[in-house]
Amino acid sequence: MSEEEPLVTDEIMDGVYRALCDHGYAALTMQDIADECGKSKSLLHYHYDTKEDLLVAFLDQMLADYEEKIESRSGQPPVDRLVEFIARFVFTPEDTDRASFHLALLEMRSQGPFNERIRESLQRSDQLLRDAVVDILDDGIEEGVFEPVDVEETAALFVAMLDGARTRQITLTKDAIDEAHYTRTVAEQALEQVVSRLLKSGVEHPPLDEALESVHE
Amino acid sequence: MSEEEPLVTDEIMDGVYRALCDHGYAALTMQDIADECGKSKSLLHYHYDTKEDLLVAFLDQMLADYEEKIESRSGQPPVDRLVEFIARFVFTPEDTDRASFHLALLEMRSQGPFNERIRESLQRSDQLLRDAVVDILDDGIEEGVFEPVDVEETAALFVAMLDGARTRQITLTKDAIDEAHYTRTVAEQALEQVVSRLLKSGVEHPPLDEALESVHE
Repeated sequence: MSEEEPLVTDEIMDGVYRALCDHGYAALTMQDIADECGKSKSLLHYHYDTKEDLLVAFLDQMLADYEEKIESRSGQPPVDRLVEFIARFVFTPEDTDRASFHLALLEMRSQGPFNERIRESLQRSDQLLRDAVVDILDDGIEEGVFEPVDVEETAALFVAMLDGARTRQITLTKDAIDEAHYTRTVAEQALEQVVSRLLKSGVEHPPLDEALESVHE
Repeated sequence: MSEEEPLVTDEIMDGVYRALCDHGYAALTMQDIADECGKSKSLLHYHYDTKEDLLVAFLDQMLADYEEKIESRSGQPPVDRLVEFIARFVFTPEDTDRASFHLALLEMRSQGPFNERIRESLQRSDQLLRDAVVDILDDGIEEGVFEPVDVEETAALFVAMLDGARTRQITLTKDAIDEAHYTRTVAEQALEQVVSRLLKSGVEHPPLDEALESVHE
């Protein structure tokens, strides 16, 4: 992606992110986004016909950023990459905004069946997450650090358990960050009960806290 | 629960369920619910001040029904009960309504942080699900069919992975039932990768399809 034009400028990306954090998805207006990025609503409409166009462009840019981040780690040991994949879902005390953002995304996700463009964007996101795990598992199996498993189905398991933990953490408490530890508990259990079983005898994984530090750099 | 007065009459329960399936949560009105259960809006308001009061009563009744169902199985072998717990999350081709219903619940869940009564109801639901797994694991460890594990954390893992699979199945496709198989894939992987590791050597679990039949009876 680095040599291509970004899908959305950084200022607009930041504005959409902040607007989603502050207003959620359902109540969000183009004016809210314009206010957050210090641009006029007419300028936004010049580039994006509808709020949906802008949100889909925003989601696609987020996916491109995520993909770039994942690719930048592709030379690292597969075991480290798998623990980092898990760590990316864990909320830390600094993640108040990120929790609000995922809550807005959850609102948006409930529109998937009714809105084709949102649904396609969610499908691309799902595929990207699962492919990231598949690549890590394939590399690790080839290098002889993971037991051979059905990589596609194992990837679905990882994505489901981490997404489920995140959804429960952000919906069950008033302040997702202070009160709930669903994502950390499930991440630890994923390491203990699922990853440990994937590792070939004698292979160890780095502790979650080490991976947390490296993904929050 | 069987000897107590139900929190909501069956007719109203059915009406709320149908109204949520047809209209979702955000757009739902008392009139929609009244129409679905063939009662007047003023009668509903006589019993429930607000739509929220009615929805919380509905959720509590659902939880009570679920609890009763779980309790009715408490004499069964722990391994069977664990596979049934997993099977309850799997969507089958007959579950079009159930998918719509869970989509409406997902909309409602995104209001958890902002609405105390909904949040408390979601917390009761989470606790009930996790307690159900804890009871099954405790019984199985006592009977010597499960390895000793941290039952609380393992319960969080089960609930997160099944909830995550359900959320992905219902949001990623236009028709959750025909096109997606997230819940079945993750349920199979939960059995293969997590449950199998919990079982003491020599203990086997029933196949998912058998449990699916027994929970859909």
